[in-house]
Amino acid sequence: MRLAHIFVMLIVWMTVALLPASSAATQKDALPSWNDGPTKQAIIDFVAKVTSEGGTEYVAPAERIAVFDNDGTLWAEQPLYFQFLFAIDRVKALSTQHPEWKDKEPFASLLKGDLKSALADGEHAIVELITATHSGMSTEEFRGIVQDWLATATHPKSRKPYTQMVYQPMLELLAYLRANGFKTFIVTGGGIEFVRSFAEETYGIPPEQVVGSSGELKFQLRGGTPLLEKLPAVDFIDDGDGKPVGIQMHIGRRPIAAFGNSDGDLAMLQWTCAGGPAHLCLFIHHTDGEREWAYDRASEIGKLDKGLDAAADNGWTVVDMKNDWRQVFGK
Amino acid sequence: MRLAHIFVMLIVWMTVALLPASSAATQKDALPSWNDGPTKQAIIDFVAKVTSEGGTEYVAPAERIAVFDNDGTLWAEQPLYFQFLFAIDRVKALSTQHPEWKDKEPFASLLKGDLKSALADGEHAIVELITATHSGMSTEEFRGIVQDWLATATHPKSRKPYTQMVYQPMLELLAYLRANGFKTFIVTGGGIEFVRSFAEETYGIPPEQVVGSSGELKFQLRGGTPLLEKLPAVDFIDDGDGKPVGIQMHIGRRPIAAFGNSDGDLAMLQWTCAGGPAHLCLFIHHTDGEREWAYDRASEIGKLDKGLDAAADNGWTVVDMKNDWRQVFGK
Repeated sequence: MRLAHIFVMLIVWMTVALLPASSAATQKDALPSWNDGPTKQAIIDFVAKVTSEGGTEYVAPAERIAVFDNDGTLWAEQPLYFQFLFAIDRVKALSTQHPEWKDKEPFASLLKGDLKSALADGEHAIVELITATHSGMSTEEFRGIVQDWLATATHPKSRKPYTQMVYQPMLELLAYLRANGFKTFIVTGGGIEFVRSFAEETYGIPPEQVVGSSGELKFQLRGGTPLLEKLPAVDFIDDGDGKPVGIQMHIGRRPIAAFGNSDGDLAMLQWTCAGGPAHLCLFIHHTDGEREWAYDRASEIGKLDKGLDAAADNGWTVVDMKNDWRQVFGK
Repeated sequence: MRLAHIFVMLIVWMTVALLPASSAATQKDALPSWNDGPTKQAIIDFVAKVTSEGGTEYVAPAERIAVFDNDGTLWAEQPLYFQFLFAIDRVKALSTQHPEWKDKEPFASLLKGDLKSALADGEHAIVELITATHSGMSTEEFRGIVQDWLATATHPKSRKPYTQMVYQPMLELLAYLRANGFKTFIVTGGGIEFVRSFAEETYGIPPEQVVGSSGELKFQLRGGTPLLEKLPAVDFIDDGDGKPVGIQMHIGRRPIAAFGNSDGDLAMLQWTCAGGPAHLCLFIHHTDGEREWAYDRASEIGKLDKGLDAAADNGWTVVDMKNDWRQVFGK
């Protein structure tokens, strides 16, 4: 064997050994909890198109913005939005400090376990409950309260921690998009600080990539130490027509992919899919009453009515949860 | 020479050849426009501390958030904030469509070239001028208007395009921090959409990392096409105590480094430097009347008074522009 041969062989061997990933690894199914079929294929085709350099629908990495609703899209939202279940638990925990709540609605009914009467006053009652439990502390204190709750509270049906009520196929989708150069954002009707308190650990989404509803904040000094106090006043509702507004305020450019599950996400999908040539708009349709819940046009939580019509009119992708997802929750 | 020796030599050679960067390259001065001295050293020491794994002040990359004021910190702000010069140019350009402005203040004085009388009404006049020139169009239309202006307008003193009035040492600092795993944000009292229109090209800062003052937006359809209309109403003023609020709303975690030049940045620096063990708070002191402008405690633009006292009390870093910067603007 001549020296030149040894040299060439070593170069070949080292080149292979030092490659970042074998092609077999990159071709592995990145979405194993999605059944094969047109829905999964639509996602894969979209990603292939926008990442193909030189293609007509190529999108530069900086513009690969994907936005995800949270409740009903990344985690479950039945029998009530989890943040509302948190507020109920907080009212109970705080009631000893608020003896006046025994005679004041909506607290009085809630403390008797009568949720229906508590909410009889509609939006006003919800605002009362949210502000009473989401203000009067610093942002850092609030984060601790939510994290303590998430560490101990369990879902009324599954009895699992709420952070285990996330959809395994969506976790795979988030990772798949990020592996393809996308920046993933949450755009939630829920509270921005509530969702941030678990989004990084649960979804791999950092706080600066969470857009949501918010209360007003006030910078002030407490004993010489600066803090941001959460005030009992609504600042912004990131739902419906508010979602494109929240996207513009926080992201400043139009997404190319949007994922939602209710009419509250319709404007976000309209905004996304009115953009450049390459875009993906997707609704998750809750069709699985056995593994999850089945609801759409008539539901009080996560109503999907106009959205289903718009999806049909515009050719958007609709996930049939029962048939498109091999697995709903993680194990 | 034995085969084993050849093998070892080849591995050594290839390892060296395939290293991403030689140590000589990484040790090159990353801040060539900064004169050697305590200010430059304070920056380098801070970066070394927070990036030293295992050190007591090590900060994980995800937490390496650096925030920069814009006017007077990244680009000049004299004789007037550049966005205000933009508004004046827009009033002139739009005056043919607004014959009523001839008899209406603050427009009438401004159109006669009498800026002092135009601003006699103080804040009210400024709000009038800004809303008249920053609303009534979509966010995308506004971006185009600003970019057209930046492409043609020139600074009244230097006669250079405004985007050449950026500070070369700060461009180097932005790049240096990013090379060390920092995520760099602008936190400006200026308009969020105004600054976004050039921040990515000029500073390498994408729109989702720009925090600023904003007007209200409204999602609506124009001939079936969705757009976000800029309304004539102030939504948020990202200045003074508003800066930590803007940081929390958009970033959701406390920065570890903050750079400003005026009392409007004081709360941002207080918030940053009340955080964990590792932090850097820095004011730029405009001391160079020859190469730039010299102003501080008594200036109407970029007043730095309480900030200078706070810097002395807290041991924050103060850049003496005249002595610390080898070069002010790029060539």
